[in-house]
Amino acid sequence: MTRPDPTRADPALVVGDLSEEELLARIFPLLPAGSSTLVGPGDDAAVVQAPDGRVVISTDVLVEGRHFRRDWSSGADVGWRAAVQNLADVVAMGARPTAMVVALVAPPDLRVDWVTGLARGLAEACGRHDVGVVGGDLSGGDAVVVSVTVHGDLAGHAPVLRSGARPGDVVGHAGVCGWSAAGLALLAAGAGHVSPPLVAAYLRPDPPLGAGGAAVDAGATSMLDVSDGLLRDAGRLARASGVVLDLDRVPGAFGADLVALREAASATGITAEDWVLSGGEDHGLLATFPAGSGLPAPFRPVGRVLAAGADGPGVLVGGAAPTTASPGWDHFAR
Amino acid sequence: MTRPDPTRADPALVVGDLSEEELLARIFPLLPAGSSTLVGPGDDAAVVQAPDGRVVISTDVLVEGRHFRRDWSSGADVGWRAAVQNLADVVAMGARPTAMVVALVAPPDLRVDWVTGLARGLAEACGRHDVGVVGGDLSGGDAVVVSVTVHGDLAGHAPVLRSGARPGDVVGHAGVCGWSAAGLALLAAGAGHVSPPLVAAYLRPDPPLGAGGAAVDAGATSMLDVSDGLLRDAGRLARASGVVLDLDRVPGAFGADLVALREAASATGITAEDWVLSGGEDHGLLATFPAGSGLPAPFRPVGRVLAAGADGPGVLVGGAAPTTASPGWDHFAR
Repeated sequence: MTRPDPTRADPALVVGDLSEEELLARIFPLLPAGSSTLVGPGDDAAVVQAPDGRVVISTDVLVEGRHFRRDWSSGADVGWRAAVQNLADVVAMGARPTAMVVALVAPPDLRVDWVTGLARGLAEACGRHDVGVVGGDLSGGDAVVVSVTVHGDLAGHAPVLRSGARPGDVVGHAGVCGWSAAGLALLAAGAGHVSPPLVAAYLRPDPPLGAGGAAVDAGATSMLDVSDGLLRDAGRLARASGVVLDLDRVPGAFGADLVALREAASATGITAEDWVLSGGEDHGLLATFPAGSGLPAPFRPVGRVLAAGADGPGVLVGGAAPTTASPGWDHFAR
Repeated sequence: MTRPDPTRADPALVVGDLSEEELLARIFPLLPAGSSTLVGPGDDAAVVQAPDGRVVISTDVLVEGRHFRRDWSSGADVGWRAAVQNLADVVAMGARPTAMVVALVAPPDLRVDWVTGLARGLAEACGRHDVGVVGGDLSGGDAVVVSVTVHGDLAGHAPVLRSGARPGDVVGHAGVCGWSAAGLALLAAGAGHVSPPLVAAYLRPDPPLGAGGAAVDAGATSMLDVSDGLLRDAGRLARASGVVLDLDRVPGAFGADLVALREAASATGITAEDWVLSGGEDHGLLATFPAGSGLPAPFRPVGRVLAAGADGPGVLVGGAAPTTASPGWDHFAR
C-alpha cells in the first residue's frame, strides 16, 4: 500500500494514515491563540496569564457512546459542546475564562476531518470568549474521548461558590432548561425533525455565559451551572449551603421552555415538566441573590432560599418535595 | 440482586456498584490538598494560587492498552505514572508544580479498589511535591482512560523553552535513560524477573524533578523532559532552537545505564544502546547550559550545541547521523 500524502485534504483520510506530528500540524493552525496566552502549543507546557494571582481550573471528559454518538454529532459539534460545558464551569465560579487544553483519544479509523472539525468547534466556541486553546495531547484508543481542562481569572473578585446561599436569598436561573435532554430524546426516537431547535440545543448548547459576570456584579451569593438537571443541581447547591431551595416558581417560570418542549413531549411521551426539572446539559446558570437586590438580566426568579428544617437541606418545588420520573443522570448507575 | 453496601471495603466491589457521588466520596479523602489550593474539589471549578501572575499548564492522557495494561500496572502504578509524567512537563518549563486535575473514564466492571489505588498513586507522587489534586471528572466507558492536567508557577523566572539552545552551549541530561522501555520489554517478554529495577522504572518512573529548579538557577537556555526517547526529543529541541545537538558523549555518558540494561538486553535481544537512544517514558530532563558555566547536579554532560549547517537542525551522535532501530514512539503509526 502506498502511503497517503499527508498534506492532501482527503475526506477519506483517517487518523492512522498520519503520524502524530502530521496530525498535530493540521490541528494547531485551527486553534485560537487567546490574548491571555504567553506560550502556546508546542513546548512541554503552555504559559497563560493569571493576572489575579489565582487561577480557576475545571476539567470535563466526553466519551463516545456516553456523551455523544458520531452518527448524531459532527466533530465540530463535539468540540463546541466540550468547550461550552467547560466554559460554563469557569463562568459559574464568577470567573472570566482564559485558556483551555484538550486531550484527544482517537481510534486509527477516525476520519481526519472529524478531528479537524473538533478543533474548529473548539475554536468557534472559544473564539467568542477570547479563550486560547493552548495545548493538548493525542493518543490512540478504541473509542473517541475528549478531555478538556479550562482556566479562568477572577479579576480580584471572590469566587462564587455553591456554598454561599443564605435564607432570604432569591433564586435565579439564566438560560434554557430541558432543551438539550429533549433534543437528545428526539434523536433517540428518530424524530429530530419534530423540533430542530431542541436538537440544536443538544448538539450545540449555547448558554448565556455572560450572565456569570452579571451575577458577580449583582452580588450573587452562590452559583453553579446546571449540567445534570435543575433538581439535581439545585440539590447540590442546597446541600453545599446547608439551606432549602424552594423553587416556588417552577415550572411556571419556565413557561417559554414548556411551550418549546410541547411538541417533543407529544412525540416521545416524556412530559415537558420532567425535562425542565431533570434534563441535563443545558448549562444554564443557577444562582442566588440577596433579597431585594433585583436579578440582573438574563436571570429570572425561580424560587427563594429557606433555612433548612428538620429534614435538612434540600429542594422543594412549590413548597413540596419534588416528584419527577428521573432525578438526573448518573454515568455509573446500572 | 441486593445492592452492595457502598460504604463497605469489598475487594470485589466494582465501579458499577456505586453511584458517581458514592465513588467520589471514596476518592476525595485520598487526594492531597497542596498548599497552593484555595478551593478544592466539589464546586464547579477549583481555585489555585498563581503568585507569579502566570500559570504553566500541561496535559497528558493515558489509555489502557496503549500506555498501560491492568495485568502489569496496579491502579496505584498508573496514578503514580500519570502524575509524574505531567509533573515532569511542568518542571521542564522551569516551573514549580502546584496543582493537578484528573479525569477518569472507567468501565463499570473496574474494581473500586483499582480506582482508589489510582487516587493513592496520584497522591503519593503529588504529595512529595506539595501538589494538590484539586478536581476532576468521572465517566463510564469501555476502557480506562486517565487524563491529567498539571499546573505550575514560574516564581518570576522566564519559562525555559525548547527554543533557547545556542551554539556553544553544553547539553546535559539528568535521570536514567532507557530503563522504562527496557522494563516494558521485559514485561512483554514475560521476563520481569530478569531486572526488577527496570520493571519498577517502567511502572513507577522516578525522574529527578528537583533538577528542573537547579537548571533554572544555573541559567539553562533550553529544556524538555525525555518522554519519547533521547534522540527524538533531542531532535525536537534542536528543531525548536534551529541548532544541531551533537551528543558526542553518547552512549558513553550513560555508562551506568548501559550496565543496568545489560541483562535485559541479553534476555530480549534489544541492545542497551538502542534503549538509551530511543527508549521513552523515563522523563529525565535534557537541557542546554551556557558554555563554561558548569552543569548543576544531577546533570551530566552528554554533548554540545553546534550551529545548524547545510542539513539544517538535527541531532548527531559522535559527529555522525545516529543509527538506531527505532526512532521513538508514535501512537498513531500503523
